[in-house]
Amino acid sequence: MNHRKGKQTIEFENPPVIISSAAIAGQKEAQGPLRDSFDCCLSDDSCGEPSWERSEAAIFHQAVMYALKKAGQQPEDVHYILGGDLINQCVSAHYALRNIGIPFFGLYGACSTMTESLSLASMLVGGGYAEKAACATSSHFCSSEKQFRNPLEYGGQRTPSAQWTVTGAGCCILAGDGAGPRVTQVTTGKIIDKGITDISNMGAAMAPAAIDTLKVHFNDTGARPEDYDLILTGDLGVIGSDILVELMKGEGYDIAELHNDCGKMIFDIEAQDVHAGGSGCGCCASVLCGHILKEMNKGVYDRILVMATGALMNTMTIQQGESIPAIAHAVVIER
Amino acid sequence: MNHRKGKQTIEFENPPVIISSAAIAGQKEAQGPLRDSFDCCLSDDSCGEPSWERSEAAIFHQAVMYALKKAGQQPEDVHYILGGDLINQCVSAHYALRNIGIPFFGLYGACSTMTESLSLASMLVGGGYAEKAACATSSHFCSSEKQFRNPLEYGGQRTPSAQWTVTGAGCCILAGDGAGPRVTQVTTGKIIDKGITDISNMGAAMAPAAIDTLKVHFNDTGARPEDYDLILTGDLGVIGSDILVELMKGEGYDIAELHNDCGKMIFDIEAQDVHAGGSGCGCCASVLCGHILKEMNKGVYDRILVMATGALMNTMTIQQGESIPAIAHAVVIER
Repeated sequence: MNHRKGKQTIEFENPPVIISSAAIAGQKEAQGPLRDSFDCCLSDDSCGEPSWERSEAAIFHQAVMYALKKAGQQPEDVHYILGGDLINQCVSAHYALRNIGIPFFGLYGACSTMTESLSLASMLVGGGYAEKAACATSSHFCSSEKQFRNPLEYGGQRTPSAQWTVTGAGCCILAGDGAGPRVTQVTTGKIIDKGITDISNMGAAMAPAAIDTLKVHFNDTGARPEDYDLILTGDLGVIGSDILVELMKGEGYDIAELHNDCGKMIFDIEAQDVHAGGSGCGCCASVLCGHILKEMNKGVYDRILVMATGALMNTMTIQQGESIPAIAHAVVIER
Repeated sequence: MNHRKGKQTIEFENPPVIISSAAIAGQKEAQGPLRDSFDCCLSDDSCGEPSWERSEAAIFHQAVMYALKKAGQQPEDVHYILGGDLINQCVSAHYALRNIGIPFFGLYGACSTMTESLSLASMLVGGGYAEKAACATSSHFCSSEKQFRNPLEYGGQRTPSAQWTVTGAGCCILAGDGAGPRVTQVTTGKIIDKGITDISNMGAAMAPAAIDTLKVHFNDTGARPEDYDLILTGDLGVIGSDILVELMKGEGYDIAELHNDCGKMIFDIEAQDVHAGGSGCGCCASVLCGHILKEMNKGVYDRILVMATGALMNTMTIQQGESIPAIAHAVVIER
């Protein structure tokens, strides 16, 4: 058990390397501040496909193919691909990968899927079970609105706390050796439900899970916030981020200057009228696999903690009066 | 890479041990031939809960608690729990586990989830990342019918090729050492889509994935069918099983005498009027974690291959005219 550190954390003896990553972004995302970091910006969010589900599968597939190409790898060089998405029964991933020929582990972690896949893939590579493994996830504004809220044509109003599902996908390739940032630690979250029932306020529902995982991480590793150049959450957005920073301060950890959130970074919140910020599996995926890993490779960050958070309800459980369980998985990436 | 054997198979140097397992079954399942193998048979499929989704979460939770108790373990002794279910966004697992406090990796593999979770958990335990890990999944006839087909009150007719979703759940606990059967090999499936579009014939949609994984397993390991006492599929049912046996014969592997299917075993097919047999994540879970592992512990089987299969569409993709992608994950269990 020499990999284990504390209750919920793994520290790798041979940290897997992120040898490549790729990010695809939609039209609105391409108008945001991170536009130059994406490998491909859609000029048409439909990708020319006849349904939004097919469009999402197309960007999922594209992200994987770009990441493989950038790594100089063929699909047969990759032992596993791990990932999923938000659409019922994770069909974006399944239709995207049905011809690719890579052994597949399907995951569902809602918007935490990017770091869930990084956590598991790191253990598969670190444990010598795979030479290379791919992690991928996606979300699409139009397929998500249709499934979780209203058809776009309905033109429903959004509350100020609502977040905007990112149209985007990201994929990274992990390997046992090579050049690139390394995944050095993994802290796996528990399901936390603090009784939030407002599905237009996902940030508030997910923040308690983020707080739980971050506290456990600091306890398990003995690290302090200042040991990181960046503490990046997946898509807490403006409201969830404020809750995280405020409540972590109450726990004795001041992360205010070190924290950012992919949902706050991907859009110009005011100018692009996205209310509380971006969300969706593709939010963390496209920001991490695009902007953040590029910045790490440039030397802007040496050591970061990335923690994607997921809200684990469905539309029916909310109609049945249930509250929203949530989860957060953290990975430490070092240059 | 000394764990790898061939293209898609892992062979464990220190095979993880299944130290306990538990199975919960519904009322109809408790009238079938395996009634004596379940740890708990429901006298009321609702479990006294106000919704079928809550009922399914209840049996998921029960399976985990029974397995922990039989292993003499508390939740805090288990480093990870891996699992999921068929309900949109895997809410049965999420609501079942929201108070349990075990770090959670959510999986979606449709009816392949039981062996997907066994595969990943075996690598986490085998790799030294967890001392103990739990694998769990569930399905419920009433929550599945409602979501995938029609509300029960509708009284829709079923085609002869239709399968009956099992009300059941199963959980097993893996450990680095201890007494019990061991997971010695894992062969991970690719997503295979042979163009089947009939959602009332899941067996036919999933059989090609089962054939692909089984062929790869034999190629990777050099094993022959006769090296196993039992080749057990998850829920191909009567039609899918016939396709598997027939097409494997064409590939040079005669598995007719060695093959059985959880969907055929759990019901008395004719007397219980279940058409092509049982299905659902809970089918393989309850048959494996109940009957099969008990038989292994008794010495009936020494070496078995278990391969759960999953159909990876959703109801909407079928309405959109898509075919059904499928996957099959195999694990070898030895006494």
